[in-house]
Amino acid sequence: MPLYKAPVEDALFLLNDVLGFERHGNLPGFADATPDVLEAILREAAKISEDVLQPLNLSGDKEGCTRHDDGRVTTPTGFKEAYDAYAQGGWMGLSVPEAYGGQGLPFTVNALMSEFSSSANMAFAMYPGLTMGAVAALLVHGSEEQKQTYVPKMVAGTWTGTMNLTEPHCGTDLGLIKTKAVPQEDGSYKITGTKIFISAGEHDLSENIIHLVLARIEGAPEGTKGISLFIVPRNRVNADGSAGEANGVSCGSIEHKMGIHANATCVMNYDGATGWLIGEANRGLNAMFVMMNDARLGVAIQGLALSEVAYQNAAAYAKDRLQGRALTGAKAPEKPADPIIVHPDVRRNLMTIKAFNEAARALVLWTALKSDVAHRSQDEKERQAADDHLGLMTPVLKGVLTDTGFDNCVLAQQVFGGHGYVAEWGMEQFVRDARIAQIYEGANGIQAMDLVGRKLPRDGGRAVMGFFNELGAFIKDNQGNEALQPFLKPLEVSTGHLQQATMWFMKNAMAKPDNAGAGAYDYMHLLGLVALGYMWALIAKAAIAGSANGDAKAMEHKLATGRFFMERLLPETATRLARISAGADAVMALPEDAF
Amino acid sequence: MPLYKAPVEDALFLLNDVLGFERHGNLPGFADATPDVLEAILREAAKISEDVLQPLNLSGDKEGCTRHDDGRVTTPTGFKEAYDAYAQGGWMGLSVPEAYGGQGLPFTVNALMSEFSSSANMAFAMYPGLTMGAVAALLVHGSEEQKQTYVPKMVAGTWTGTMNLTEPHCGTDLGLIKTKAVPQEDGSYKITGTKIFISAGEHDLSENIIHLVLARIEGAPEGTKGISLFIVPRNRVNADGSAGEANGVSCGSIEHKMGIHANATCVMNYDGATGWLIGEANRGLNAMFVMMNDARLGVAIQGLALSEVAYQNAAAYAKDRLQGRALTGAKAPEKPADPIIVHPDVRRNLMTIKAFNEAARALVLWTALKSDVAHRSQDEKERQAADDHLGLMTPVLKGVLTDTGFDNCVLAQQVFGGHGYVAEWGMEQFVRDARIAQIYEGANGIQAMDLVGRKLPRDGGRAVMGFFNELGAFIKDNQGNEALQPFLKPLEVSTGHLQQATMWFMKNAMAKPDNAGAGAYDYMHLLGLVALGYMWALIAKAAIAGSANGDAKAMEHKLATGRFFMERLLPETATRLARISAGADAVMALPEDAF
Repeated sequence: MPLYKAPVEDALFLLNDVLGFERHGNLPGFADATPDVLEAILREAAKISEDVLQPLNLSGDKEGCTRHDDGRVTTPTGFKEAYDAYAQGGWMGLSVPEAYGGQGLPFTVNALMSEFSSSANMAFAMYPGLTMGAVAALLVHGSEEQKQTYVPKMVAGTWTGTMNLTEPHCGTDLGLIKTKAVPQEDGSYKITGTKIFISAGEHDLSENIIHLVLARIEGAPEGTKGISLFIVPRNRVNADGSAGEANGVSCGSIEHKMGIHANATCVMNYDGATGWLIGEANRGLNAMFVMMNDARLGVAIQGLALSEVAYQNAAAYAKDRLQGRALTGAKAPEKPADPIIVHPDVRRNLMTIKAFNEAARALVLWTALKSDVAHRSQDEKERQAADDHLGLMTPVLKGVLTDTGFDNCVLAQQVFGGHGYVAEWGMEQFVRDARIAQIYEGANGIQAMDLVGRKLPRDGGRAVMGFFNELGAFIKDNQGNEALQPFLKPLEVSTGHLQQATMWFMKNAMAKPDNAGAGAYDYMHLLGLVALGYMWALIAKAAIAGSANGDAKAMEHKLATGRFFMERLLPETATRLARISAGADAVMALPEDAF
Repeated sequence: MPLYKAPVEDALFLLNDVLGFERHGNLPGFADATPDVLEAILREAAKISEDVLQPLNLSGDKEGCTRHDDGRVTTPTGFKEAYDAYAQGGWMGLSVPEAYGGQGLPFTVNALMSEFSSSANMAFAMYPGLTMGAVAALLVHGSEEQKQTYVPKMVAGTWTGTMNLTEPHCGTDLGLIKTKAVPQEDGSYKITGTKIFISAGEHDLSENIIHLVLARIEGAPEGTKGISLFIVPRNRVNADGSAGEANGVSCGSIEHKMGIHANATCVMNYDGATGWLIGEANRGLNAMFVMMNDARLGVAIQGLALSEVAYQNAAAYAKDRLQGRALTGAKAPEKPADPIIVHPDVRRNLMTIKAFNEAARALVLWTALKSDVAHRSQDEKERQAADDHLGLMTPVLKGVLTDTGFDNCVLAQQVFGGHGYVAEWGMEQFVRDARIAQIYEGANGIQAMDLVGRKLPRDGGRAVMGFFNELGAFIKDNQGNEALQPFLKPLEVSTGHLQQATMWFMKNAMAKPDNAGAGAYDYMHLLGLVALGYMWALIAKAAIAGSANGDAKAMEHKLATGRFFMERLLPETATRLARISAGADAVMALPEDAF
């Protein structure tokens, strides 16, 4: 059975020594999160993840969810008890305002809980994850009455939430949505249509399920400008706020899918269900985007989370499995063979994952802190800069952390040889589970188009210029730091590649948009590599400073891991730039019938 | 349900126009394979693959194999009938000498049948594939009596074969094998031990199963020098050559694994089973290597095969699925949205796979032709050069075609968005099935070590020098071909990278073997990229020559696809070289307890 130990020490090091968490003490919620409190929360988060969620991961995958003839869905054995423990621990409302029953803590703390719980049991963590996405949309776009009706119950875990976007004929292109909403005299709407791929659409964990549903009000304009967002509770809400009778929405079937078997992916049938408009009519996509941005960061975290747990298992196996002898002579001559961690190619696998994970965790926390600033700061300029950052980085994190997270699960599985392919070790489950993160919440190709087509040019390129300025200033300010040079030089080269690629788009994509489309995916990864390289430079700086007074050995390991990233992984920026600069010609040359 | 159409035209173009199949007319078996015969065989191979094998792929995955309480194993519905059709069609013995019931055709033809059948149904194709591996070992190392006893029955399909190497505590390191063989007075041995991960170990397709088993004769030296190879038929062979009573070998369980569900992966228990030595005592690994080299090429072909079928389905879906509008304006204004093939990022996915598949097929056939020359030529010098090539390229094809084949299945799955993640479209099965090819027959890290540690230095680097000479001569000889320049120049750059990497090993790996180990994997991929680039140059040359008299449009498409490879995929050689040149320091820096 796979193991998992939440990386609490690394998280604390990143928050306290690298990213200056305490510098944000003036933001609401941060004052409560003193270093001691922070550590105590993370240790509790680790505990429930390791002791309650992780032991259900393999069995949950094997058992899966069951749909009964009456449309009810049962989650795997143990999930209900684990969910109750999770809800009662207050984990659901960690960063929800206290006014709605939450704890009002920084989103950054929530991001770490998301990582730990997703590493432990991704399929489980999706139930609260989707609920929190729905809460985010309600908090921003719901009326005060709607917030009071739904949010405290969702924070308590009594009710859960879902997002209903996709229909059989449309996923990415939401302008094609057919689900219709007919206005009723009492101000409600009757919702009718079919939604597919609805994660956590039906289950036995909560007393009620609050569906947020995109639909088209009768007579609304065609396309994306005629889409509205509705609250459709599975059970109608009684006057006293309790869950009442059934509301014309049911699960038609659950999908047989590659992974996340313990999360019920449902076809949801709406048959004149009563729904309530959230926000303005025909502005549903806007409201949904709030939910999607949070969700995209959440999915990015899943990529890291699976990469981390897969790494931990591969490292443990590599230290345990005896096979062959080191190229430099036997390391364990008393045993029939050396542990396979002596082999450089096994280490290459492990180091590739480790060097990514530690920087990716920094990138998540750096971005989560910006999210806290963007949502909580009183300083308009600071808030705007953080919001620019968030807009630019959200698609990058979603695309790069899930792509690399998946690749890393495959690498970790490879360390196990044939044992990685059989179910009992759990490695093949990590690969199957990680795969969905590249697809849902906007397939990664869509993230790349969002980045290059929308986020990059917005406000005259202000966000990416801000990033370049930050990089430039860091490199300049640290020229005197001799020990940091192995990090600064590669970072400078890669930043140059990113700048060249950005210039190339400016010159070549206006007149020929396909040039942007053909290079978008590589640009997303190029930007991600530079951002990860920057994280390593920040980590290295802290490690150099800290090795004098802190744990010198741990800091030395940080520096060695970072050097691996700079020498082995960052140089890929050159290939990414070469691909982008090749333009769209060869990509678009063939006529359709040649495929 | 997924579709499949065997690429017969592409295969014929490669054999006839690119690789000069007819130039080998002097080799045994080639005279019979006239262009007409070749085409007729390939069309029949396509037919059984498309009509008989492919329709059982999805259902076979879903149903899987069943082990009954008595140890018998049943294959999925329809497999037995398909197997009979396959055997009766004579496909099993396509390239086995006529003296043993085969058709004596070139191995090259067999390689194409392997591709087609593996695309159609990889789990099915493994049953005959393993049988042919066992036949290859018997033909080289078996006594005449053994050959006569087993081979004709295996060629007829009446009996099948397996390879039994792995044990619970050892896979890669076969020196640790514990299965023991006790000599008997009649010249046979009693075999006792447990083997795991035995593909096709037990099933209902054939009347008998001939296990080739590695075991240690009592008192043999420790390590790899004490391993012998035995024939252990599941049912003893009667004096008249028919299958008789049970022989103390049985299937203890079948593995629950990520993919190839329709192939029974068995734990095999040997309990004093009667076995017969093949070849010399204690030289079993040598005999097994014959089987493994063929099998490695077979596994490489599986990588291509799944990449091809995944591509075909992704291309069809991209032409059919309507979502969004082209960046350059609506292409299907009469429809609610454009087919997604208009989007550059979708094309990038498709072109990436297509540009690989067509070169990989050329590489397989080029290498298969060398195999035919190595095994059948009368010219000692020619034979040696072909054998050098085969030794060098076998690990490269195994590693690169399966790694890229898997990556391409993931790309193809991505084109489907959420539909790629659910079982009914079959895309997630391709990913799960393709994954095993990176692991079995020597995990790809082992292939890399075989390449760099063994094949590269052998005979003073003669094989790789031969490859460099061929590349150099081709580039020089074609300088006057103006239309070929877009292929020659990138090939020259990448060849330079490969030469630099080779030199780097010569300089840095002798004194410090970890430098070879840490760079081996990237070197394998670097060599693979150059070889694929060379294939594209050969294809382009033929396409340029052929576009005057042949199908000009098809040749134009070949050139456009090749340009994509040269511009987008080949430049990765720079990153591979950078990683190799970084050496082992960062890879090996951390102590074990830092993982």
